[in-house]
Amino acid sequence: MRVLKLGGSVITVKEKPMTADVGNIRRLAEEIAAAGPGRLVVVHGGGSFGHPVAKRHGIAEGFTSRGQALGFSKTHRAMVALNSLVVDALVDLAVPAVSVTPSSFVVTDGGRIGAADFDVVRRLVDGGITPVLYGDAVLDRSRGFSILSGDQLAARLAVELGASRLVFAVDVDGVYTSNPKLSPDAQLIERLPLGRMRELVEVGGALTTDVTGGMLGKVSEAAAAVEAGVEVLIVNASRPGVILKALRGEPVTGTVLTR
Amino acid sequence: MRVLKLGGSVITVKEKPMTADVGNIRRLAEEIAAAGPGRLVVVHGGGSFGHPVAKRHGIAEGFTSRGQALGFSKTHRAMVALNSLVVDALVDLAVPAVSVTPSSFVVTDGGRIGAADFDVVRRLVDGGITPVLYGDAVLDRSRGFSILSGDQLAARLAVELGASRLVFAVDVDGVYTSNPKLSPDAQLIERLPLGRMRELVEVGGALTTDVTGGMLGKVSEAAAAVEAGVEVLIVNASRPGVILKALRGEPVTGTVLTR
Repeated sequence: MRVLKLGGSVITVKEKPMTADVGNIRRLAEEIAAAGPGRLVVVHGGGSFGHPVAKRHGIAEGFTSRGQALGFSKTHRAMVALNSLVVDALVDLAVPAVSVTPSSFVVTDGGRIGAADFDVVRRLVDGGITPVLYGDAVLDRSRGFSILSGDQLAARLAVELGASRLVFAVDVDGVYTSNPKLSPDAQLIERLPLGRMRELVEVGGALTTDVTGGMLGKVSEAAAAVEAGVEVLIVNASRPGVILKALRGEPVTGTVLTR
Repeated sequence: MRVLKLGGSVITVKEKPMTADVGNIRRLAEEIAAAGPGRLVVVHGGGSFGHPVAKRHGIAEGFTSRGQALGFSKTHRAMVALNSLVVDALVDLAVPAVSVTPSSFVVTDGGRIGAADFDVVRRLVDGGITPVLYGDAVLDRSRGFSILSGDQLAARLAVELGASRLVFAVDVDGVYTSNPKLSPDAQLIERLPLGRMRELVEVGGALTTDVTGGMLGKVSEAAAAVEAGVEVLIVNASRPGVILKALRGEPVTGTVLTR
């Protein structure tokens, strides 16, 4: 079983609110379809759909005023719209993909998933269906509400469902010694053991603004999966063919997180 | 707390596949908004969105072939599309409505909801948010998958959440002595006690084709809510103002189901 996390920066145009990267979504759907039938869970991020709305209404900070209820609605609605584009692209290629709504069954506590019932996701996978989840505005036991990142959700699902591989599809080749978008000296780290993860990432992590954290968040979320024995890859989904290879288990440029 | 079930025949054009009755959806959203803030759960049916797709793929009959997985995807996708129209109409009128996806947390058994965790719905209502659920293609413990009717879901929610009132919004004035669309002698039954429900409905129930049953299904689903002490109304949402009055608890033409 594999979990594929599609980064918001890959499937949306980050600078333009509510703008999907339709070309990337279609190509990634084609790569998923080409990888053939197999147990797969897809999780995607919010990119320019969820994040600007969530930020405007302070959803990640929790409940502070009555008016946020409508902001919560709008954040979720934006994510449903993006999710529909991803699911539709898959279904159009005859991939039996079914949207699974995180906020309908996950209640976080201080922004973290506590006890959660992933029975539906497990049953869908067992039934040959590909569940498609996403980062979402969710209810939170202590804060009222919160933003559940697609990264946290993907890592948790990989652990819960006993995935063999967790692939983070981002818009750079992996984890670098410094930010590759800013520094010409940045070098790709091909194997990153748990111990070295945080220090390196803190030095030169991706500087994209993202309510739920960029590469740093991804790596720290992935740690639990790595510890549970899941093979975790961070690869560049902007390059055609990379996700197809990663799903098939073929060698691909990127960063492998190891224990 | 009130539960409002919007019939598929009211919010879609039944004869035209995948066609919403945009005018009715907007007007009903206006009536819900005008009824003012208050604890409310909305559930809607599938009408011309969910039913034709579900029927084509035999989803209500359960798992019979691998190819149905894609049919399950498509049925759910159709319902998500209709649900987005309902939620959008509410949010556009500043009603903090949040879509809650039944198939993401309900697994039926032989087509019936067994144990189900309605914690998210309860928390949303407590937080001043209006959850919007719908009849959906769901996983089923014994059949593989099934169709969960909006009627069954609405009645169950009314019982689980201790609703004071459950309003079924349909396209006729209530339960008649015979089918009012076919018989000029049909008389509206204003008060219908549990004991008399089934016999009357069997004689002249609504003859609309509906995978999940028409008026007969509605009344039998409502029985459990009536028994639990919920006031159940069946009213005509095609008539402007009726839902507004029903939500406010004002007298309105229709059928009241009583113990």
